[in-house]
Amino acid sequence: MIDPAARAADAVSETRLWDRLMRLAQIGAIPGDGVNRPCLSPGDREARRLVMAWARAAGATVSVDAAANLFLRREGADPTLAPVLTGSHMDSQPEGGRFDGIYGVLAGLEALSALDDAGLATQRAIEVVAWTNEEGGRFAPGCMGSMAWSGHAPLSTWDEVADQSGVTFGAALAEHLALETDLPQRALGGRPHAYLEAHIEQGPLLEAAGLDIGVVTGIQGSRWFSVTVNGASAHAGTAPVGLRRDAVQDMIRAINALNAMMHDPADVLRFTVARIDVTPNTSNSVAGRARFTIDLRHPDAAVLKQKGDAIEAVVRGALKTCTAVIAEHFTADPIGFDPSVVETVAQAAAACGFSALRLPSGAFHDAQFLVSVCPTGMIFIPSRDGVSHNPAEYSSPRQVAAGARVLARSLIALAG
Amino acid sequence: MIDPAARAADAVSETRLWDRLMRLAQIGAIPGDGVNRPCLSPGDREARRLVMAWARAAGATVSVDAAANLFLRREGADPTLAPVLTGSHMDSQPEGGRFDGIYGVLAGLEALSALDDAGLATQRAIEVVAWTNEEGGRFAPGCMGSMAWSGHAPLSTWDEVADQSGVTFGAALAEHLALETDLPQRALGGRPHAYLEAHIEQGPLLEAAGLDIGVVTGIQGSRWFSVTVNGASAHAGTAPVGLRRDAVQDMIRAINALNAMMHDPADVLRFTVARIDVTPNTSNSVAGRARFTIDLRHPDAAVLKQKGDAIEAVVRGALKTCTAVIAEHFTADPIGFDPSVVETVAQAAAACGFSALRLPSGAFHDAQFLVSVCPTGMIFIPSRDGVSHNPAEYSSPRQVAAGARVLARSLIALAG
Repeated sequence: MIDPAARAADAVSETRLWDRLMRLAQIGAIPGDGVNRPCLSPGDREARRLVMAWARAAGATVSVDAAANLFLRREGADPTLAPVLTGSHMDSQPEGGRFDGIYGVLAGLEALSALDDAGLATQRAIEVVAWTNEEGGRFAPGCMGSMAWSGHAPLSTWDEVADQSGVTFGAALAEHLALETDLPQRALGGRPHAYLEAHIEQGPLLEAAGLDIGVVTGIQGSRWFSVTVNGASAHAGTAPVGLRRDAVQDMIRAINALNAMMHDPADVLRFTVARIDVTPNTSNSVAGRARFTIDLRHPDAAVLKQKGDAIEAVVRGALKTCTAVIAEHFTADPIGFDPSVVETVAQAAAACGFSALRLPSGAFHDAQFLVSVCPTGMIFIPSRDGVSHNPAEYSSPRQVAAGARVLARSLIALAG
Repeated sequence: MIDPAARAADAVSETRLWDRLMRLAQIGAIPGDGVNRPCLSPGDREARRLVMAWARAAGATVSVDAAANLFLRREGADPTLAPVLTGSHMDSQPEGGRFDGIYGVLAGLEALSALDDAGLATQRAIEVVAWTNEEGGRFAPGCMGSMAWSGHAPLSTWDEVADQSGVTFGAALAEHLALETDLPQRALGGRPHAYLEAHIEQGPLLEAAGLDIGVVTGIQGSRWFSVTVNGASAHAGTAPVGLRRDAVQDMIRAINALNAMMHDPADVLRFTVARIDVTPNTSNSVAGRARFTIDLRHPDAAVLKQKGDAIEAVVRGALKTCTAVIAEHFTADPIGFDPSVVETVAQAAAACGFSALRLPSGAFHDAQFLVSVCPTGMIFIPSRDGVSHNPAEYSSPRQVAAGARVLARSLIALAG
């Protein structure tokens, strides 16, 4: 008798999974192979209906909760046991790619289809979830569906959050749910046996190392700051350099000092200045104000605290003629995934014959909100050039199938 | 017998000149004591008519040329001699002040009024000119009136230049001239005996030194560049710093290197990075492109050439991971004013008992286009905090009168 986990992995169809990914990419397609599929939009609904149809064809049942999180359930031998949950999200960035989010949903569905094809039963049910609004592209912040489901915040928190055309999240959700009244309802929340999310890496490490699979150990922490440097505008032709309070020049002094402080020979720390806004921003008027952002990330909470707390003094110490206002806008502590789930994924990858690397996730994912609810883990597949949130986002048919095989093996291991 | 030049200077009325400046400031007034008076607008026409009425009351005659340059002529004892020309412009920046440009026209008119009040005659005629469109705020570039008049470019050059609402300079000029058919016409161009322009300094040097008058020795040269640094956008959370091609970081390396190269202990060189545009300019996406401008000015042509020519190599040498495109968009050679006119102004200031400083102009002026036509000079008065092109622009009643007194004395000296 062949090992059921091996049979499930073997039953994963590279062709079917790729075809489904490409079919989904047509819903909200934008030039350059990109996708723009905002959450709770007609495109989102069309995509959900297509996924439901495929799930039903594989013997799964469908239900929806109050946050419009969509669940596809393959029943287990003992329906009273907590299910194993897998999934991701189906919304995209405004100029997004064909893999971010939707890959995790379709890889979960592929696992269900493979189990069905192979005629395999599991003790526990396996559920595939599509979380609502992970990207935050239409309604900020992202991860509303997983946050509401896991109890991190009440769903009503975001009722009044409006999109660019003034439609509130509350109104868009009500409209969406009214169009899904034909679907069985389920309660918001739950306590799965485990949660496992497959996702593209969105970074270059796996590709650079020539590896198949990332065994994700956790999600690094983040601290986001803005620094506003206030000087005085002046005529670029008449104001002597020595009398200026040039906000651009003091901004550069501040960034130079921050670069020195943030330097990490191990290249684990991520320090990014990616947004700069200068006022008045005309070539012949010395800048009166320059604002820049800091995105600081590290998997070690102690490092994140020490480096983040040092920013204000380093900036102030670097300024020569201007003043500065430093504000912290966002903090997310580092998260470690459950060691047993991490080990399950590592063993599944090895059993499939895939090369793998243990690494923390540099990006946020719905998985981070599941950590407090149940043992949680993630599986990464390589991203070409590390590109994501971009139409050029790409993983090959072989790579997406490899991730689905590891997922299927892991789900069998977790569901028994 | 009292010296006629002293009588002319004494006859300058601080009250009259200030009242006229404040009356003009009502035409196109904006909040914060500012002025928005675009060239060839109804406000420009209203201002011109007011100035003409004052000029006629002082015994001057009025005429207009094909560029709508306005001339106010006080006849000399010998009408066949080349006149002495003074003036500036009456248009303002969109958010301009009450002194830039209009001061030079009203100071010239005040000199005419003072000569009239004092009953003084000159050998040569004295003409006050208001040049059309110096600022370039409505139709770019600026100085069209003085450029066309001095033969730097045919007037038709700018026929198709459109303002923000699509009106072309050619159409606006035709409309304007059609409303001035009641005025005597004169030919475009001429060869005055000398040209002298009074203007606010638009810089902080006179105020900082506590001086009354700037004896302007010339206009420094300018070279304007843009540097576009091309890297690759990436996810700020996932892309290791060592694998990034971060356009912001390479831009900072380039500016650091330029700062070192441009450093001038004498603080004569003006090196300004005042505009920065980052793409995509979102806090959590490593910058794929960063563009910055360079405004380089110096009164010495050799220094301007050497420093400007060195920019490209310095930028390329500083880049670590990105490429750059460096382009020069504008060049203006340094201009030296006529030594005899400069000396006339210096002697007039001394004779009035005013403290004075010889300095080059950091900003552009219509005077730079007169240099090729006749002996040319300028008189500066202090600008509070060096502020200009801003509603906060200010010079005191005493300061504006001092400049007019020096102008009146200088005109007498030049007109004989």
